[in-house]
Amino acid sequence: MERIEHIGIAVKSLETAGLLYRKLLGTEPYKTETVEPEKVSTQFFNVGGNKIELLEATSPDSTIARFIERKGEGIHHIAFEVDDIAAEMARLREEGFILLSEEPLPGADNKWVCFVHPRTTGGVLVELCQERSV
Amino acid sequence: MERIEHIGIAVKSLETAGLLYRKLLGTEPYKTETVEPEKVSTQFFNVGGNKIELLEATSPDSTIARFIERKGEGIHHIAFEVDDIAAEMARLREEGFILLSEEPLPGADNKWVCFVHPRTTGGVLVELCQERSV
Repeated sequence: MERIEHIGIAVKSLETAGLLYRKLLGTEPYKTETVEPEKVSTQFFNVGGNKIELLEATSPDSTIARFIERKGEGIHHIAFEVDDIAAEMARLREEGFILLSEEPLPGADNKWVCFVHPRTTGGVLVELCQERSV
Repeated sequence: MERIEHIGIAVKSLETAGLLYRKLLGTEPYKTETVEPEKVSTQFFNVGGNKIELLEATSPDSTIARFIERKGEGIHHIAFEVDDIAAEMARLREEGFILLSEEPLPGADNKWVCFVHPRTTGGVLVELCQERSV
């Protein structure tokens, strides 16, 4: 784990939350992007090299919609940057963590990603992410 | 807001969660500290300059104990480093955010801190923190 790459925050409306986070962070978002396979629209803010990712569901069966139903709006996951996602996935499996995919998946903001099951991390949804080379 | 200083994670047992996060993050904690006024014991990990703070309640009426009762173990707050906490508190008040203290309070890891009410930040407990000069 190299550093915190971003914090994902589940929101009902990207428009409303986007305005709120502009004020809170005192900066403009640098990217808005829909990730179809994950059924989310995302908006990214850069805060000194760390990022805040707002996540709005694009469908009622999106994991974000289900998260908000259960827990309300709020922090959804922590993403850590890794240099070699395959090696880190192997290390975590070896340590007994349960991964939510067998292979890295394409994620938002040009990343390969893999999630770790919160049951094995004390209730925290952890994402590993590695920059995709073009 | 300069950058993400740390992520606070509410845990039932610092000992159990400490072992888990050693494995997850692949690093040892650099500090364990009790903050009496907040009724918490904390353990800090450094991940590339960002920190993970594990928080265990030292009393059943600690905010951490109440958080775990309501929501279970998991991410409790995001802390942003600021250069001038008083100025940032004034800016946020002006923008309509509700602060949980009138003045900065002494926090863990040698910081002045102030929390922002999650009702005004879309469900996210936000902490401002500034290094205390000796």
